[in-house]
This record gives sequence, structure tokens and C-alpha cells, in this order.
Amino acid sequence: MKIDKIQHSKLDTVDPNNSAFGVNISDHMLICEYKDGEWGEPVIMPYGGLNYSPALMSIHYGQAIFEGMKAYKDKNHDVFLFRPERNFERFNKSAERMAMPQISREIFLEGLYALIDLDRDWIPTKQGTSLYIRPTMYASEEMFSARISNKYTFAIMTSPANSYYDKPLKIKIEDYYTRAVDGGVGFTKCAGNYGASFYPTLLANKAGFDQVIWTDSKEHKYFEESGTMNVMVRIGDILYTPPTSTTILSGVTRNSLISVAKHHNIDVREERISVDDVVRAYKEGTLKEIFGCGTAVVINRYSHVGYKDTIMELPQLTDEESYAAFLKKQLVGIQTNQLEDPFGWRLKIEKQLV
Amino acid sequence: MKIDKIQHSKLDTVDPNNSAFGVNISDHMLICEYKDGEWGEPVIMPYGGLNYSPALMSIHYGQAIFEGMKAYKDKNHDVFLFRPERNFERFNKSAERMAMPQISREIFLEGLYALIDLDRDWIPTKQGTSLYIRPTMYASEEMFSARISNKYTFAIMTSPANSYYDKPLKIKIEDYYTRAVDGGVGFTKCAGNYGASFYPTLLANKAGFDQVIWTDSKEHKYFEESGTMNVMVRIGDILYTPPTSTTILSGVTRNSLISVAKHHNIDVREERISVDDVVRAYKEGTLKEIFGCGTAVVINRYSHVGYKDTIMELPQLTDEESYAAFLKKQLVGIQTNQLEDPFGWRLKIEKQLV
Repeated sequence: MKIDKIQHSKLDTVDPNNSAFGVNISDHMLICEYKDGEWGEPVIMPYGGLNYSPALMSIHYGQAIFEGMKAYKDKNHDVFLFRPERNFERFNKSAERMAMPQISREIFLEGLYALIDLDRDWIPTKQGTSLYIRPTMYASEEMFSARISNKYTFAIMTSPANSYYDKPLKIKIEDYYTRAVDGGVGFTKCAGNYGASFYPTLLANKAGFDQVIWTDSKEHKYFEESGTMNVMVRIGDILYTPPTSTTILSGVTRNSLISVAKHHNIDVREERISVDDVVRAYKEGTLKEIFGCGTAVVINRYSHVGYKDTIMELPQLTDEESYAAFLKKQLVGIQTNQLEDPFGWRLKIEKQLV
Repeated sequence: MKIDKIQHSKLDTVDPNNSAFGVNISDHMLICEYKDGEWGEPVIMPYGGLNYSPALMSIHYGQAIFEGMKAYKDKNHDVFLFRPERNFERFNKSAERMAMPQISREIFLEGLYALIDLDRDWIPTKQGTSLYIRPTMYASEEMFSARISNKYTFAIMTSPANSYYDKPLKIKIEDYYTRAVDGGVGFTKCAGNYGASFYPTLLANKAGFDQVIWTDSKEHKYFEESGTMNVMVRIGDILYTPPTSTTILSGVTRNSLISVAKHHNIDVREERISVDDVVRAYKEGTLKEIFGCGTAVVINRYSHVGYKDTIMELPQLTDEESYAAFLKKQLVGIQTNQLEDPFGWRLKIEKQLV
């Protein structure tokens, strides 16, 4: 791995503890180029522009995938990643479905560790903050034929992050627009999944909602995801989340929350959740919580859920009563080295480059 | 409009009459930037790199659309476009669904006319060639929040083009993978639609087919599109093509072929085509032709159609017997000013800039 360090850090103008999500990008990025059937040497270099023309194939044909991860600092300023292997594996699953090359553990993980080590001063320390990490791969050939690209760029960038949202959201159960379909790319983190969701979300915003709950494409009867997150529903004292499928992302946060819940003897079930079941539970008074979960936001609680002409107002549980609040506290505690990690999920990044 | 001409044309190293599709990009491109809620002044400049970082939002979230058009030269070296208004209108429909800004007729069409005028020496003259035109718009803000971008770039690039394919194809009727779904983005020319189709196409290639015919997402029973083209089926002397919908692109070539066919008293019907109907016609000996149609390829005839374990071999019609051959000849004749244009589709580009 080649390392080309910045001359002058941007940290004299950026406060990592007060950065809106995703706006300030750290000093360095990792870049690795694929051509002629193989990956070159990864290079850590100053973050900045590359000389792409508007014929860049990823812009035209959407061969572009990413991951979302975070690095955390504890009170001793030790640095931790959270289950990075999971993101590495999912990245390669996305790559396969998008007809893009597989990437090695060495480039993705060793590259990531070196980059986080080098830019460790960018990791904020305030409660609830983290360094957001964005690995991405995109077609970087420049031409117009609608075919699989012969060149790709793998990049890792990082950015200090406040929490993504901070208030309970009003959410709409979407009954026309579709995020994902069997035989499609819903289980991947490809670029096209996100852009396609913006317009339906904008319509929901105009109708007074913050986000949408996506339902299945065939009947719009079953919960799938929520915004760009997985979704969980608590009815009585049972926590439900849809099983992963070709239309549902296998979320690292989702998977981790299930483990944490089980560890604390919460009855959690990976089962399909029908809109009818949710409406019935609401009418019977047993619908306690609905929340989204994902890396960027960890957990986002919902206060109101709209379905057709009805608004379901969810009970305002205290943090002591709420599964969402409890699970978020446990998970963030593990991620930030404030709680024990019985699962072996934390990975400490040693100081080597700085 | 600002015009910044190249110092030295690449035409001394490129022969437009012998250029593989989409590889050689002409001397100039048109660029127009959108920010703070409005479009700036369009600029025609030398084609080349722009200083984008790997945080370019279109790479991460897929807000990226394009159009495909062509310019033609007749034997007097007069230059013609074909129904450019249609592409302009469809571009804005794609933009709306992808939550991107609308673009004005002035920027898109006047910009296009000026660019084609300036680079008219790039338009090849050999039979079957053309100058392929690629208008595109993409999110050009650089940050990581999964939201609608605040900045966009509109670009037009051009490239001399041979015909896209030149032999009858073996095609597979796809019965698992899905291109488009109701409530999705199948009717747009957004980047994500293409990248998602590469892997299923690769699997078809490995099974000995050149392309796939996409079927509906619910039952995989009805023809939708074929590769990146619309699809037409001739049973007996009737030509069928599926009606446009939210899952089927409203192709300019498709629409033009329907008009040309009607003009020549061919019975053409916009009706759903079921796989069962096609298989039955094959068995009864009335399945005469299946072909794809689109701007890049005009018409591509299919020789073999695979469905599950069966291969249907289509009759080898002569050019005199084939609707595909007849319609292609008529359409290309109109486009290239070799035949009369009873529809008023051709638009002559006058010499003003060179």
C-alpha cells in the first residue's frame, strides 16, 4: 500500500464534534483501480477530485455500490470499528449482483484499517458521534456502450458524523411506489436503489411525513424496509422484523440488534409483518413501537404511522419502557467501548501510521 | 451560451466512419450546472475531465439519467436530427421521477443544435452509421447524506457510431430476474435500470444467449422489453408490441416504427404479449418474427428464443418477407434523408458555427 500524506490538515477549519452528517470529508481517501481483470495497488492520498469526464460509465449505467460503517473513540481515545467483516462480505455480494469485480480482504479491510489509523484525529468524541466511513466501488471506464465496465475504482472516504436524525418521525406506509422486487437488486447497496426512492419520499414529505415504510411490490401488504433502514415492530412484548430476502438489505445494525435483544431475553422474531397485523394491533392497543435501524442512524423511533387516510399515533414510551431506547443504548455502548462486548464485535485500531 | 472551442481537433487520429459504438468522443461537450435552485449558462467546451471526487452523489445515490439520440448526414453532407423534441420531453419525465430538476427547451435543444453544428465533421457518412448523442444529467454535489442532491450537471456528448449489433441474436425469455416493477423507475432512462440488468444478461450469455427478453415482475408471463430495447413480435401478419406503462420505456424508435408500419398498412397492435401466446404461435407455425428496437440499434432481429428448456428457432425470412427489415429500411431512410418524411420528423441543422 502506498501512502501519500497531506501537507496540511483541514482540521484547523473543521470541528469533528460539530459536523453535520456527511458534509466534511476527512484529509485522506483510499483509492484502488481495477483494469485488465485485476486490482492495482491501493493508495492512500489526500481527499480530492479525480479527472473524470461526464462519460464516466457509473453515471450512465449505475454500476456503483457502497457500504456504510463507523469508527468510534472511547474516553481513552482508543479507536474501534464495529463488525467490519460484515460490511466487507456484503460489499462483495452487492458487487456480484451488479456484475462488478470482487475485492480482496486485503484491499478492503487492511486499507480501511490504515486509513482510519491515519485520520484518527477526525473521529469525534462527543456522545452519539462517530466517524462515518464510506467504502464505494464504481465503474470508471468512460464510454457510451450499455455494457459491463472494464474499469472500476474502489474508494474509501470518511466523514465526522453527528447523529443522523434526532426526533421521532412521522412515517407513511407506502402503498404504490416500490423500492425493491424479487429478481431485482433490493438486497444490495447499489446506487440505483437510493435515487429511485427520493421521489416517493418527497411526495410523503409534502403530505406531512418524514419517511416511508416500503411494502412488498406484489400486494403492498407486508413491511419491507423503512426509508434507507431496516424496520422493526413491537406488538405487546414481542419484537418483529421481516426476514432478509432478495428485497431486504441484510443490515449489520439489524442483525446486531437481534442478537442484543436475544441476549437480554427479548422475544424477537424474524417474520413477515403485514400492514393488517399492525393496524389490528393498533386498534387492540398492543402496537407499542415501530422503529427503523441502520448504521447511519442506529435506531430511529417513529411517533406516527400513516396508512391510507388513517394516522396511527404510537404510545409515547419512556426510555425505560422502550425497546428501541434500550437496544440503542446497549448497541452504542458496545460500539463505543462503554459496555462489555460479549459478542466479540469491536475491533481496536492500533496506532501505527501516526 | 458560451463557446470555448478546441485548439486542435482529434479528427486527425479518429475516423468517424470506422469507430466502434461509443468509444471515441467528439471534440466538444456541452455543460450546464444547476445550483441554488437554478440552471446557469450552458457552455460548449473541449470534451474532457471535470474535477469530481469519489464523493460525487450520483455515484452513491444514482440520481443520474440520460437520453440516446442520433445525428445523420445525407449525401450532400446536410445534417439532420430525428424527433429531438421527444427525447427532450422524456428526459424531463425521467428527471421528475428521479427527483431531479426540469431542464428548459432552450438549454437542452438549443444547446444540442449548437453542439451538433460545431462538431458536424464528426458525423460519419457510411451507410448505417450516425453520430450518437448522449445528453445526461447527474447529481454533482459531493457528500454522503442519502438525500436529494442540491447540485446537478447537465452534459451533452457525442460519439460517431457504427451499427450497434450486426447479426441476428439468440435471446432468452427471463423468468426470474426483473428489470422493472409497477411503482418503480422502469419507464425512465435512469442509470440504475441498466446496471441492474447486467448480471442477468451475463448469466444469459453464459447459457449461450446474446440478450434477454424481460417479462413482468409479478408472474413473468408477459413480454416487457428486450435487453435495453423495446420488443415487437409478429404472429401471422400482425405486429404486436406491449403498450407503454410504468415499467416500459416509451421508445422513440418504438413509436416511430408503429407510425411507419401503420402508414404502410401493416396491422400493428399495442397489446400485452404473453409467453404462452408466443409459444402457441411457434407450435402452430405462425410465429414469424421477434425483434428489439431502440435508438442505438434501430432494429435487431432475433433468430432463436429460449424459454425454460425449449429453444424456438424463428423462420429465416428474406428482407422482402421481413417486417423488421422493411421497417428498418423505411425508418433509416427517413432519418438519413434518403426517403420522404411524411411525418415531419427530420430536423435540419443549419451551418452557423463552422
